[in-house]
Amino acid sequence: MTLLLSVTGFDPTRWREALLREAPNETIVLRPASAADESIRYAVVWKQPPGVLANLPNLEAIFSLGAGVDHILADRTLPDVPVVRIVAEDLTRRMSEYVVWRVLDHQRRGMTYRAQQAARIWNERVQPAASDIRVGILGLGELGRDAAEKLRLLGFQVSGWSRTPREIEGVACRHGDAGLGEILAESDILVVLLPLTPQTHGLIDDGFLMRLKRETPLGTPVLIQAGRGGLQKDSAILRALNDGRLMEASLDVFEREPLAADSPLWRHPRVFVTPHAAASSDPAALAPLIIRQIAAHRRGERLANVVDRTAGY
Amino acid sequence: MTLLLSVTGFDPTRWREALLREAPNETIVLRPASAADESIRYAVVWKQPPGVLANLPNLEAIFSLGAGVDHILADRTLPDVPVVRIVAEDLTRRMSEYVVWRVLDHQRRGMTYRAQQAARIWNERVQPAASDIRVGILGLGELGRDAAEKLRLLGFQVSGWSRTPREIEGVACRHGDAGLGEILAESDILVVLLPLTPQTHGLIDDGFLMRLKRETPLGTPVLIQAGRGGLQKDSAILRALNDGRLMEASLDVFEREPLAADSPLWRHPRVFVTPHAAASSDPAALAPLIIRQIAAHRRGERLANVVDRTAGY
Repeated sequence: MTLLLSVTGFDPTRWREALLREAPNETIVLRPASAADESIRYAVVWKQPPGVLANLPNLEAIFSLGAGVDHILADRTLPDVPVVRIVAEDLTRRMSEYVVWRVLDHQRRGMTYRAQQAARIWNERVQPAASDIRVGILGLGELGRDAAEKLRLLGFQVSGWSRTPREIEGVACRHGDAGLGEILAESDILVVLLPLTPQTHGLIDDGFLMRLKRETPLGTPVLIQAGRGGLQKDSAILRALNDGRLMEASLDVFEREPLAADSPLWRHPRVFVTPHAAASSDPAALAPLIIRQIAAHRRGERLANVVDRTAGY
Repeated sequence: MTLLLSVTGFDPTRWREALLREAPNETIVLRPASAADESIRYAVVWKQPPGVLANLPNLEAIFSLGAGVDHILADRTLPDVPVVRIVAEDLTRRMSEYVVWRVLDHQRRGMTYRAQQAARIWNERVQPAASDIRVGILGLGELGRDAAEKLRLLGFQVSGWSRTPREIEGVACRHGDAGLGEILAESDILVVLLPLTPQTHGLIDDGFLMRLKRETPLGTPVLIQAGRGGLQKDSAILRALNDGRLMEASLDVFEREPLAADSPLWRHPRVFVTPHAAASSDPAALAPLIIRQIAAHRRGERLANVVDRTAGY
């Protein structure tokens, strides 16, 4: 059978090699032989060109190369076959590394100490203990849950929010519209790990940032955004930083990526920018999971982590 | 009874207030009424002026305001009464925050990403997973053990070294001279949390840094020093950074503190400097522990965490 590997935005070579290592007897193509290529049974994609999957008569499932699937569902011509998210320990651990790293850098006043070092200033700053800080996590899927548990083990107070009710030991779980207001009003550091859906698109706007806590042990709240750029309005975050509603921000995602060279976010003294690198997919770690799912499906087993298209994740 | 609070290098006001809150009926003085002041039963000190404790006829015990006691034992005229270290969850947690923060900042390539941001460069760097990195911790007292456990929970491989044999689940424990060679040769990131004693003074010199691993997933090894400045030769660390044996360093302590304005460490692009702030003592958290120990001692109970003067910690 033939596997279609269709990506835009990066070189698929490492993925092609990793998939071939796992399935040396399969054929892997980077584009269909024709719009109605009958040989293609499975597609592994990242931001596939719109329409490329529309007319493949024997396509049985579509696999995302990452945790998000908004880049797949954005294709209006998507055929009605299962879309599968990747759920991988490697991805989860890397996201938790990023979240814990950024939370500690803000709590321990990394930006202040780096500025003092540049000016050769030896001056200890009063710094709240982890137990004085409440971290609020928006999104309690695999990634949010793991980050919440690791932050708890470091002594932080943790709240979490999800669309539907969840329960995590030691985490104050909020949900729904009312719960969103609660977590925005109680979080000293807000971590956004939401999927991008029609409901969450543009969520982080002026109104959202207005609902944040006014005072925190760090001054005002800190925003850590590692979900999807489409969740935020870059300009609203910038306004909140400049009028003091936001103390600092760590941004891994942006409305348009790569971030434009003339964006003021690059040079803002209280913003830390990473190039959508919080939890990047490692082909060597993820290819085996995809090939294993395909093999199971061909044996007639059910696919795991199938996306609910109406929910969008 | 009278309590002597004798410190140099900072303003003792916050400590005096915190001690008085815990023991409102005691007298707390900042210096003896005379060299042989008979009223003083207990001394709480940080770098006390040499000789101030020498001739107090009724002194029963000396308490350190921090985890280290080298600043007390350095006084050649120290009377032969118990010297007590502080062992406090607050101190331990703050040190673990610092260690996890610095390990993640080096593993996640914070220095590289901050330099890219300053140049507005959008470029994802290949970054090893925590499970690809071995962190070696020198010193397995309260602080080292707690940091080791938290790093393990984040997925790092962890080794530890102590003078005498220890056992910590999931941590490769080395000890003695042979064990020191082993941990230097196997660590990708080396964390130093040793006490300053005659044996450890000047330990981190050219010879020590020569014994480090040659290649790591990050390039060459990273040094994180949060023990005591007396453990290191600043110049040796600088040489190792400049000839590439050390990839990066996070230094919270220095041979002389405050770090001299003309030290090249301030402006080194691969060094992160903090002003001996990794785990500073919080009077509100620690004063109750000291007063509780004094009360217990006056009831005739044994003091906890008494320093072994021959070992020096």
